[in-house]
Amino acid sequence: MNTGAFSLVVTALRAGVEICFANPGTTEMPIVVALDRVSGMRVVLGLFEGVCTGAADGWARMTGRPAATLLHLGPGFANGIANLHNARRARTPVINWIGDHPARHLVFDAPLTSDIAALAGSVGWTRTVKSAHEMAEASLAAVEAALGPPGRVASLIIPADCQWEPGPEPLSAPLSSALRETCNPAPQEAARLLRKGRGGILLGGNALTERGLRAAARVAAATACGVWVETFPARQECGRHVPLFPALPYFPEQATEALANVASLVLAGTRDPVAFFAYPDQPSRLLPEGAALCTLTDPETGVDAALALEALAQELDAPAVAMLPRTMPAFVPGGQPLTPDALCRALAAFTPENAIVVNEAATTSLTWNAVHASNAAPHTMLFITGGAIGQGLPNALGAALACPDRRVIAFQADGSGLYTLQALWSMARKNADVTVVVCANRRYRILQAELARAGVIEPGPKAQALTDLTRPVVDWPALAKGFGVPGCSVRTDGEFADALLRSFAERGPSLIEAVLA
Amino acid sequence: MNTGAFSLVVTALRAGVEICFANPGTTEMPIVVALDRVSGMRVVLGLFEGVCTGAADGWARMTGRPAATLLHLGPGFANGIANLHNARRARTPVINWIGDHPARHLVFDAPLTSDIAALAGSVGWTRTVKSAHEMAEASLAAVEAALGPPGRVASLIIPADCQWEPGPEPLSAPLSSALRETCNPAPQEAARLLRKGRGGILLGGNALTERGLRAAARVAAATACGVWVETFPARQECGRHVPLFPALPYFPEQATEALANVASLVLAGTRDPVAFFAYPDQPSRLLPEGAALCTLTDPETGVDAALALEALAQELDAPAVAMLPRTMPAFVPGGQPLTPDALCRALAAFTPENAIVVNEAATTSLTWNAVHASNAAPHTMLFITGGAIGQGLPNALGAALACPDRRVIAFQADGSGLYTLQALWSMARKNADVTVVVCANRRYRILQAELARAGVIEPGPKAQALTDLTRPVVDWPALAKGFGVPGCSVRTDGEFADALLRSFAERGPSLIEAVLA
Repeated sequence: MNTGAFSLVVTALRAGVEICFANPGTTEMPIVVALDRVSGMRVVLGLFEGVCTGAADGWARMTGRPAATLLHLGPGFANGIANLHNARRARTPVINWIGDHPARHLVFDAPLTSDIAALAGSVGWTRTVKSAHEMAEASLAAVEAALGPPGRVASLIIPADCQWEPGPEPLSAPLSSALRETCNPAPQEAARLLRKGRGGILLGGNALTERGLRAAARVAAATACGVWVETFPARQECGRHVPLFPALPYFPEQATEALANVASLVLAGTRDPVAFFAYPDQPSRLLPEGAALCTLTDPETGVDAALALEALAQELDAPAVAMLPRTMPAFVPGGQPLTPDALCRALAAFTPENAIVVNEAATTSLTWNAVHASNAAPHTMLFITGGAIGQGLPNALGAALACPDRRVIAFQADGSGLYTLQALWSMARKNADVTVVVCANRRYRILQAELARAGVIEPGPKAQALTDLTRPVVDWPALAKGFGVPGCSVRTDGEFADALLRSFAERGPSLIEAVLA
Repeated sequence: MNTGAFSLVVTALRAGVEICFANPGTTEMPIVVALDRVSGMRVVLGLFEGVCTGAADGWARMTGRPAATLLHLGPGFANGIANLHNARRARTPVINWIGDHPARHLVFDAPLTSDIAALAGSVGWTRTVKSAHEMAEASLAAVEAALGPPGRVASLIIPADCQWEPGPEPLSAPLSSALRETCNPAPQEAARLLRKGRGGILLGGNALTERGLRAAARVAAATACGVWVETFPARQECGRHVPLFPALPYFPEQATEALANVASLVLAGTRDPVAFFAYPDQPSRLLPEGAALCTLTDPETGVDAALALEALAQELDAPAVAMLPRTMPAFVPGGQPLTPDALCRALAAFTPENAIVVNEAATTSLTWNAVHASNAAPHTMLFITGGAIGQGLPNALGAALACPDRRVIAFQADGSGLYTLQALWSMARKNADVTVVVCANRRYRILQAELARAGVIEPGPKAQALTDLTRPVVDWPALAKGFGVPGCSVRTDGEFADALLRSFAERGPSLIEAVLA
């Protein structure tokens, strides 16, 4: 007998969903049984739901195809919300299969009953399945919703009886399994504005491919406009093979200063830039009052911003730009203490060609983004898009499974790494090629900076306690060992370089705790 | 200048909120500064929000007074929802202070913006502060909402500007800081039903004190009725000093069998019992069709069920019941492999008088609840009320801080313990007297049982992968070391007993990985 669960899984597989990051419970058992019956759908257990959702996001950022998650009712789903928030901001296609009690049981308000739809609605498209007969059609609807455009988090709430009862024939999708894009660039207005001078371009989303970056360089050379990259893009091509543009700074006073002389800003794959947080004396919008805004491509439409930038360059008759050769400064390990800058320099020196760098390194990565990444070998960088920390390790897991021929570097702050450290176990189980670099400054440094910005020069004992991660010191190699990942701790640039090279030389995950000076 | 944040904190402190379990971010910095200024309010950092919310629940279960949490916008709050779900089901008073962007910033949809009210509404009372002028009154309103009755999860969403702007004078609460109770028992109907024979009593909530259990024993002796304890109560007095009643079984076929001959059921501090999950051929309600139901006390009212049971005993002229002396069977360590039963026997033999046992041991604790706990020294047991796993370690942290003169035993399944293992770090920082006993069966045994119940005799490789926690084996002593907690691993009852005694003899936390045979 084909159950509703079987219809769900087969339909999703035919629509291009190849992998399911799962932490199921009793209400999802029929889907577990169906997964067993359906060859072709890979299954990865996460020991915590935030691992599953972050891995699905990482998978989809690298493939453009949605991954599924399998989560246990409201509380299990809630554990995955933070990384779904990041996926929502990245416009990543993610499909959640969430079990629930049958309707006949819901009315009794059993212990695990909660308002799943309210939770799921906070991160995207949501549908509650009403009958097993819907299971194929609902499965396809979730894939379509996830693919957008824009890419979306799509949640199906699936009562257990709809899973275990006989289901309909699985459907075969008429849709492409990749994020669907249309191209309709209208570059005339952007060209007109940039020709007037004091122009700027802000790049984001799918503008940050090699083609997009090269086209932006042509436009910049032809119009002398400034070019910035949005502060936390979902995915960006980096390295010495592509033009280098600064990221829009994180703090609003720095961002407004960067944009102060811009008379018109062209948006390619991103939106009118706003501050990450509000502060008493800072504006929320970062562009000067009165500056013109021109949307070349809106990220919600899925239009390819790289194509649009090429069309803009053509409209401007901008010639090709020869890139000045950039070479990596020679790395001479000097037994130097690991400052953030020394760490970034060593990391850039040895980043393997075609690596994926998942950047949740917070304050340690400031000089990485500004300087070192552009000297490194060509690589792809993933950022924490929504500010919900705990994205890095799960994202790295998903990216590694999506791209088994590429080395993944989880460039990870210690504070946020502790949110979803259970991802290490799944890396070990899948022997994922992830090099975890934990930037151990042993504090929430960004919060110490925020306290100083708020005028608190000498924090009292409670503010110190809330931003300090010593007492006790976290022993990351021990945590890694606990989850089956080999680990080590380093304190100089030479030790760090050696550890990196050892890690890159072997298959499977390893963890390097870089104790910052 | 007194900020709104200062008004919030001082008002809560005056209303009896003495402790704040916190993981703040930028939008909560003014509250951090206020906490520093206000002496008397303790602050405990959790490395993950589920630790904070679970600890607040544990604190409140032991004190009857609410603890506060301090959480970072929607994603930070979402990470705490699972344990708030358990608190909701336990009717525990918990207050959440959740920062948000100022209204002027919300409109720009900055990266961390999300619908916090939708998330918070799923676990209880919610209010969004509109102005700094409200901060004292809103703080008090949250305490009142939390105290109920019934005890509630009360969430205040507090825009950052309401925190940093000048605030009103703090308020002094006219209310008692403990859960307010009224007593209005009307035992006549219950007495009439029980006198007819084939009666039963189901005990829950505040019926499970020593007084409540003794009164229930009097009623049972006078009417020959059956007595059961709800399957997952928030808090129960246990040990050889109190009458022993069986818990209502977890699986519905066993529960309906237990209640099959009941003609009328009296509810004391609990509600009409329902199955935890729905199954194809099982009912949701557990009581036989046609059996009479009588609510002696409803848990939502906060009426003291123990007093009501005493009134019922008096109505029935039930004499005092002499308890037969129970003594602990002598424990003879025999180098026996640690079966669940052997583990429970050893644990019962050495549980210190007045201990608090936080029971999230899942399948390992089956014989504990049924047999061994009643032979142990007097102790208090806390259960996972809402089925949202990851409650045990955080609850143990909160209980230990609430009761510094009592030993806490976190009796913990390995699978669920991995959800919120970051609690170990806070135990180490606060030197909390917690003995963590990890029942390492290295699988989600309950799910393997559910697969078997669903007729899957030989699970395929994916179902096995989703229920198996080897490949790699989790090394709990290494994880404990990573968070600054001493740990060991044991495999026989003698080794386990030795490790327990060592742990009880020292202040501060330690972890024992009990590898089950």
